[in-house]
Amino acid sequence: MKKKMSLAETAADQIMDLIRENGLKAGDRLYNEFELAKRLNVGRSTVREAVKSLESRNILTVRRGAGTFISQTEIVKTDLLGVSLFGRDEQTALELLEVRLILEPESAALAAMLADEDEIKAIQKQNRKVTSQIRHGINHSEEDAKLHQMIAAATKNRIIAKLIPIIQHSVSLAIEITNQELSESSIMYHNQIVEAIARRDPRGARSAMMAHMGENRLYVLKEIERKKRF
Amino acid sequence: MKKKMSLAETAADQIMDLIRENGLKAGDRLYNEFELAKRLNVGRSTVREAVKSLESRNILTVRRGAGTFISQTEIVKTDLLGVSLFGRDEQTALELLEVRLILEPESAALAAMLADEDEIKAIQKQNRKVTSQIRHGINHSEEDAKLHQMIAAATKNRIIAKLIPIIQHSVSLAIEITNQELSESSIMYHNQIVEAIARRDPRGARSAMMAHMGENRLYVLKEIERKKRF
Repeated sequence: MKKKMSLAETAADQIMDLIRENGLKAGDRLYNEFELAKRLNVGRSTVREAVKSLESRNILTVRRGAGTFISQTEIVKTDLLGVSLFGRDEQTALELLEVRLILEPESAALAAMLADEDEIKAIQKQNRKVTSQIRHGINHSEEDAKLHQMIAAATKNRIIAKLIPIIQHSVSLAIEITNQELSESSIMYHNQIVEAIARRDPRGARSAMMAHMGENRLYVLKEIERKKRF
Repeated sequence: MKKKMSLAETAADQIMDLIRENGLKAGDRLYNEFELAKRLNVGRSTVREAVKSLESRNILTVRRGAGTFISQTEIVKTDLLGVSLFGRDEQTALELLEVRLILEPESAALAAMLADEDEIKAIQKQNRKVTSQIRHGINHSEEDAKLHQMIAAATKNRIIAKLIPIIQHSVSLAIEITNQELSESSIMYHNQIVEAIARRDPRGARSAMMAHMGENRLYVLKEIERKKRF
């Protein structure tokens, strides 16, 4: 089930880095095949495959005889982890959730140890907002993301606070989140996490976040299995 | 010891995001103070403070009467976690090491479960290279980074494989790594990690990586204490 990044995927990813690092804009011409092969230290057939995959994602346009041009840079600029190259699929979402499963329980535990009183109050308020949105059937993904970000910020680790939104944004690039069926248990786990943070209980916050992330991961795993059967 | 990101730091970080997302280049004029305050949803005094901090980092230049201009975009483009704003100091390195301490033991454990035979051989070879560099007193930071990247790639989780180099690059922006005194124990821990991966022992790989990262973290903590005393 797990797949390794192919040479062409890696090359496509590096081309996105090149576009970002050289500040290339929509309409700019990309280096030619020969130049790309040299810069990325791969064969020209790998470059061709990478360019093709970027073309199918509307990042590049190949004009016969004229060269390869940048079509748009929106994705390049906001997709810092390059997940748009992995394809919009459950496998990518699963890998992202594995990372959240590693990071966020520790984030919750640190928050339980280090959150200020005003941060705890703000987290509790945000939790009530998310709960209310779920109860009213309103799309809660944005406010839910914010709740997790506020917990990350309360760790006082600025790297964790930066990473969580980057990963969340990547998840939104990878799949449409439609796990409405998880809403009731999300309310339960959010309450457990927030209560544990409020009573300064790192173990409780860690295990509740682990259960929350683990359930989301299981949901995606089941989706993958379901699709395989059809 | 832990510090929260100030409003101005957050604003400076968001200005870097604006520069990146709008593909602004050196010489381009930045939005004026009023426009920035509106876009970032903060007061003008916060904007002034943020611009000042970016000026001191040679990212912006304020020309009286003419406006604020981008001086260079190198840092903006490669510093995806925005650590250059945190200041080149041990505190930033400590926070980065805390994240490595969360991520890399799991990365090593996953590698022990999922590495292919050829990946294990390549990891062993890379470990011998790093060991030899340390023994010969050659700067091993680049090859050491590569060893950790190869372990991350062997997890088959493409997000972990993307994150590790980003965090490593951030560490190099935060501090000059001069922990020559840790070299002998690095060799020992690298051997433990690589041997555990080769014998498919996730617990062994996890705990050896935890010890390795924990020792590095302790080193930075001691540096912080040492500087405080002077």
